[in-house]
Amino acid sequence: MQISGVQKLTHMHHLNLFSVAYQDKKGTDKTWTFASRSNPENPAGSTETVPDAVVVVPFHITEKKLVIIKEFRVVLGGYQYGFPAGLLDLDEKTEQAGKRELFEETGLRLTRVVQKSPAVYSSSGMTDESVSLLYAECDGTPSSAHTEDSEDIQVKLLSREAAGQLLQKPRAMFDVKTWIVLQTFASHGVF
Amino acid sequence: MQISGVQKLTHMHHLNLFSVAYQDKKGTDKTWTFASRSNPENPAGSTETVPDAVVVVPFHITEKKLVIIKEFRVVLGGYQYGFPAGLLDLDEKTEQAGKRELFEETGLRLTRVVQKSPAVYSSSGMTDESVSLLYAECDGTPSSAHTEDSEDIQVKLLSREAAGQLLQKPRAMFDVKTWIVLQTFASHGVF
Repeated sequence: MQISGVQKLTHMHHLNLFSVAYQDKKGTDKTWTFASRSNPENPAGSTETVPDAVVVVPFHITEKKLVIIKEFRVVLGGYQYGFPAGLLDLDEKTEQAGKRELFEETGLRLTRVVQKSPAVYSSSGMTDESVSLLYAECDGTPSSAHTEDSEDIQVKLLSREAAGQLLQKPRAMFDVKTWIVLQTFASHGVF
Repeated sequence: MQISGVQKLTHMHHLNLFSVAYQDKKGTDKTWTFASRSNPENPAGSTETVPDAVVVVPFHITEKKLVIIKEFRVVLGGYQYGFPAGLLDLDEKTEQAGKRELFEETGLRLTRVVQKSPAVYSSSGMTDESVSLLYAECDGTPSSAHTEDSEDIQVKLLSREAAGQLLQKPRAMFDVKTWIVLQTFASHGVF
């Protein structure tokens, strides 16, 4: 497989479509359309190391519970269960962004980073979006006082049993990463 | 938060941009741009139940190993570690699509579905894409004989130890779902 070039198809502010020209295994010329928040002159390849966003997997160290948020998602027209997350500000480190987003969205204080993933890809069939997962311990009292006007968020602290019950809730919408972690937590008590 | 309408911004074949008009918590009019493979007249809301794609989390029942693929991703310009996955064909059930994609991409036969997620969302800040996760047992001999011309795939069977080693590989690119499952498998021997 051989990439020959990337063309920008739209000129929106936050998100654009791009077309990659490539040759398949038999040498046939093909194109693939994808969405990106950045301006990739070339696809990421293996040199990309800065994630677009951080996703915090927070464990409340006093309550001994997993923390998730129930957030209104404009794109879905409803409330989704997910982890605190957000785009990295310019020159912001993953840990800084994770600490900031966790506080803004939940009021909780990040006390220890347990594990950090590299930049991993959300859905590489349709976008080059990458995120870094920050498994972290946190403490404090949940609060929505620090959310922005465009954020409609409730904080949920989940025991293993509560995670299992939430997964059974009819018509609930989940972020895929959150569903996977909740499933493992509910089934095995770990994540 | 109140959605007032969705406008289609582009007219591509496989993927398009849309703009949602909404009012934030203070009643201010705002817009949000997202990418979609479908033609959402209205955002999904809680009525959406058919996923765009299936993602198989396969466990080889004879080898007792987790199965992943190393696949060339045009959008990333390189090889990514991920799970066998693909879009559902028209009127195809999740289980059928999972069985088909697993065989096409790995040559392995799905023998038992252990668990199936509802349609869960890949990255709802930028797309309405949803997937159903199919945790499944499989058997047989890995093969790339059934891949398409646009698919460049190697099959990997991973023990818990091998999963831990792969996560340490410098500059390796991972799908986020796969990274989460590998991390839990490597750390705790479960997923």
